Amino acid sequence: MRHTISLLVENKFGVLSRVSGLFSGRGYNIESISVGETIDPAIAQMTIVTTGDDQIIEQITKQLNKLIDIIRVTDMTELDHVEREMILLKVKPRSDRKLEVIELTNIFRGKIIDSSDKTFTIEITGDEDKLKAFINLMKPMGIKELIRTGKVAIAREGTG
Amino acid sequence: MRHTISLLVENKFGVLSRVSGLFSGRGYNIESISVGETIDPAIAQMTIVTTGDDQIIEQITKQLNKLIDIIRVTDMTELDHVEREMILLKVKPRSDRKLEVIELTNIFRGKIIDSSDKTFTIEITGDEDKLKAFINLMKPMGIKELIRTGKVAIAREGTG
Repeated sequence: MRHTISLLVENKFGVLSRVSGLFSGRGYNIESISVGETIDPAIAQMTIVTTGDDQIIEQITKQLNKLIDIIRVTDMTELDHVEREMILLKVKPRSDRKLEVIELTNIFRGKIIDSSDKTFTIEITGDEDKLKAFINLMKPMGIKELIRTGKVAIAREGTG
Repeated sequence: MRHTISLLVENKFGVLSRVSGLFSGRGYNIESISVGETIDPAIAQMTIVTTGDDQIIEQITKQLNKLIDIIRVTDMTELDHVEREMILLKVKPRSDRKLEVIELTNIFRGKIIDSSDKTFTIEITGDEDKLKAFINLMKPMGIKELIRTGKVAIAREGTG
């Protein structure tokens, strides 16, 4: 099963290397990872997406919890949460399809952040399904480059 | 000086660990990193932001180039490029400031992706300055959580 794991860590060099080493040491690939500072610059937040046996992932999260410099590990998969990713996509459509690219970008609430005479660079955010759908629509247009941020996840707040 | 480095790598376990080890081995902190698949699932793309002496960073990129499983290393800082990041922000404003949060989110072309009776979760994308400005505006509203994807960068296309 696929897991989205959120970590709060001390913002020090070496932490990322130790965390990723824990996954690779077990032959686990990290499908995507995002790391950035929180409001407190001394603390960084990581979101890791990985797929594998539930028990082994539980072992990995337990080991992560024991690592020095790791403040908190949360398997978001166990919580009600929202996942989002941003992609940048550079497309090179034929002249007669340029308008279609612009229209589809608007429908998907994307933004064209750069354009040249032959290319558009598009920014889109959303969940996995939305991004997959947009990428599939752009494939026939000629994708020159695709950059993903990797997923980030945040817990939903209960109402009531 | 701050550098934004883009890497194309084989999508195999252990690569992230080797790359991050190269930075930490020299005492260099990775400020932010994003890793995700490209259109070809066998290839992943990483964006790393780090600050340090230009010569040492040049040495690091040269060493990265020599690593097996690394296809291409580009120091985006040397190119005309666009940088973007996405943040998710959970705020808990006083009741009389809720409308202000919604208005500011609209002005910044953000999206409210979750709301409860007490909180809003907001998605915003942009460059560093825009995100910093939005975070500063939200501070007095009561930030409960901030998740960043880390920066991604894409080269501009020349026109003409």
